[in-house]
Amino acid sequence: MTSKRPFILVCNDDGITAPGIRTLISIANELGDVVVVAPDSPQSGMGHAITINSTLRCDPIIIEDNAPQQEYSCSGTPVDCVKLAINAILDRKPDMIISGINHGSNSSINVIYSGTMSAAVEGALEGIPSIGFSLLDYSWEADFNPARPFIKSICETVLEKGLPDGVCLNVNIPRASSERYRGIRICRQARANWEEEIDVRTDPRGRKYYWLTGTFVNFDYGEDTDEWALAKNYISVVPVGIDLTAGSYLPAMLEWDFSIK
Amino acid sequence: MTSKRPFILVCNDDGITAPGIRTLISIANELGDVVVVAPDSPQSGMGHAITINSTLRCDPIIIEDNAPQQEYSCSGTPVDCVKLAINAILDRKPDMIISGINHGSNSSINVIYSGTMSAAVEGALEGIPSIGFSLLDYSWEADFNPARPFIKSICETVLEKGLPDGVCLNVNIPRASSERYRGIRICRQARANWEEEIDVRTDPRGRKYYWLTGTFVNFDYGEDTDEWALAKNYISVVPVGIDLTAGSYLPAMLEWDFSIK
Repeated sequence: MTSKRPFILVCNDDGITAPGIRTLISIANELGDVVVVAPDSPQSGMGHAITINSTLRCDPIIIEDNAPQQEYSCSGTPVDCVKLAINAILDRKPDMIISGINHGSNSSINVIYSGTMSAAVEGALEGIPSIGFSLLDYSWEADFNPARPFIKSICETVLEKGLPDGVCLNVNIPRASSERYRGIRICRQARANWEEEIDVRTDPRGRKYYWLTGTFVNFDYGEDTDEWALAKNYISVVPVGIDLTAGSYLPAMLEWDFSIK
Repeated sequence: MTSKRPFILVCNDDGITAPGIRTLISIANELGDVVVVAPDSPQSGMGHAITINSTLRCDPIIIEDNAPQQEYSCSGTPVDCVKLAINAILDRKPDMIISGINHGSNSSINVIYSGTMSAAVEGALEGIPSIGFSLLDYSWEADFNPARPFIKSICETVLEKGLPDGVCLNVNIPRASSERYRGIRICRQARANWEEEIDVRTDPRGRKYYWLTGTFVNFDYGEDTDEWALAKNYISVVPVGIDLTAGSYLPAMLEWDFSIK
């Protein structure tokens, strides 16, 4: 006899022991039967990377004694975790994939660098309703508790309504403060950028090396954006698609003349 | 006195010595002043990954004697190469970034896994007209010559017309054959997937490990898609954007009720 409870796969990019994923697992356990397949080490900034030139490990692991969920620790990226889970680890297709809770923002343009969101996008590619959750607090000791009822409500809504093929949700949550969250807002991705400030250093042998670093700059003040919602203490929900075609520019391009000289 | 010739940055994901990038450099040299910043080793499948938890190297290298271009070999991903080039290596902003020629297809859904295309997307984020080129031939000895006049024409057109902020081009080229290419077509990204077939093996110490492998499955037969164009021996050009919002699904989502129970 199989369970009538939803079957939920949990993933992240900060690694399987991160407080963010431990919180998400405990919420998932209230909603259904849970399997965790998550990276054995931090994979932040991995985007939609997959491992094609080397092997992958994915082994059962016990992190909490007597916990209801099954867990697997994987040597690969968040997308590898989802691919391995669906095609090698799980005995049936999950009803939902949830990824996170990321320690740090994945709003706006961060979505394209985010391993957390790439796990959700991979779920969308597989036709599985998928959500990535991120808290705007990079600290390992971040307070996830005020977000719990909102995360649970979003998961319940997606389990009830589903999502269209090829669409997942990017959920960002303001940093917890004494002020209560004002609610949930559906948004579009703001147009923003990272302005890099490369840190150039010299190693003990006199050779140059570099650290990437930068400042996030928003130049989109639309009140329908995720950045606006987050600044106003709302939880932002952006539906994210898998078709990267810049559709609005297609008609103009059809006029182009590529003559071969 | 600065040159009036366009200033072109060349990148790829197969590594700086790959025949694909060597071909692209030789085309770029016909069009402008060229700097190459490319990975020191293969970075296929890296998607939009960036290196944030470790250091990067980026050192001058001479690969061809007496060549006009300057070249730098970088320890990071294709996106790292573009970020380092723009913010630490180059003394001025490039007029164009070209990435590739990739050994293998980046059509359809491959765009989201592609390091080649992520370099172009990063260029688009910086407001620099950027193009990723890929040949549908994984062989190291692939014949890039029949594609040369088309690649040159597309680069010339982009140098002349520019591209809107946040839009780059994904150019895929059929494998060379005795039949001549039928021309260039502007397309949208086809809806396709990889159906994974995970290869499970046992190591000499009896522990399981995995290889990702799979089959590309197209289920979009629209005659306006890149897959259609490539199958008909056209070179496909898809304008790719950086806003992942699934805009067509936004109105439906605004009806959702997220009540907190």
